[in-house]
Amino acid sequence: MERLLRRAALVGEAGEIPVAAVVLNERGQAIGWGSNRRETDQQPLAHAELVALQQAARLRQDWRFNGCTLLVTLEPCPMCAGALVQARMGRVVFGAADPKRGALGGCLNLASDPSAHHHMQVTGGVLAERCSTQLEAWFRRRRQQRRGPSPGTPAVPAPAG
Amino acid sequence: MERLLRRAALVGEAGEIPVAAVVLNERGQAIGWGSNRRETDQQPLAHAELVALQQAARLRQDWRFNGCTLLVTLEPCPMCAGALVQARMGRVVFGAADPKRGALGGCLNLASDPSAHHHMQVTGGVLAERCSTQLEAWFRRRRQQRRGPSPGTPAVPAPAG
Repeated sequence: MERLLRRAALVGEAGEIPVAAVVLNERGQAIGWGSNRRETDQQPLAHAELVALQQAARLRQDWRFNGCTLLVTLEPCPMCAGALVQARMGRVVFGAADPKRGALGGCLNLASDPSAHHHMQVTGGVLAERCSTQLEAWFRRRRQQRRGPSPGTPAVPAPAG
Repeated sequence: MERLLRRAALVGEAGEIPVAAVVLNERGQAIGWGSNRRETDQQPLAHAELVALQQAARLRQDWRFNGCTLLVTLEPCPMCAGALVQARMGRVVFGAADPKRGALGGCLNLASDPSAHHHMQVTGGVLAERCSTQLEAWFRRRRQQRRGPSPGTPAVPAPAG
């Protein structure tokens, strides 16, 4: 999770919401890394979890992940939680909970929903405070950047060309 | 939906669950086609809707689909419905409802869930009977193939080499 926080910080600097994920195989080896690339790739599917899953499936040449674990810094959204169920992921470990959009217990729980044909082991709250702090700091910085340098400063149009 | 049924039939013959999808832009032009490729690609994400979405996002160079419509022969699962919310799809039209796994009203409804930060217009049941019949026939054929030619026939091991 420490390494994921560092990776998330890097994509945060590149303008993406800082989230990073990794898939570990049965022996604990990393087989897929992902970080949020939605803005960079202009892809609605480019959340950290799905990027990592796609890479891992390519490597294994298998869509089933029963003995594997996915680690991610933020609780997965419904798309990602649904994908983890589809991939039959063995275990999911996440950092910060997301009470607004989290789909593994935060807002809804797709792991225990009647629609889930596969049941994953879910552990939340690993390094939760550091994961939350990273996200909050990123959103705070972005709000400040959007508001401009100070509330009283008049808006100056960017130079053309 | 007629064309989608023909496309779904083709992937059904190739051993995939027969589901096909298309994304239409604001002017009704097809900008992304997809059919189920999970077995072919060994990718947990290769559902028809996500294949179509990925292609359409690549073409538009934009992850937002507010004015667009996705058509699909089967009600989307939680992963796909979550992806459509993430993509801010304007409208979703589906054929057969899926009371077991459907996430747009069949089993749960991610379009109206508190986690949904975007609200899509959803229309289900278009050519529903033909879409259902196609799926049921495919599953029936597969069960028959797995059971073998007739229930009384003793199992013969496949020749090696």
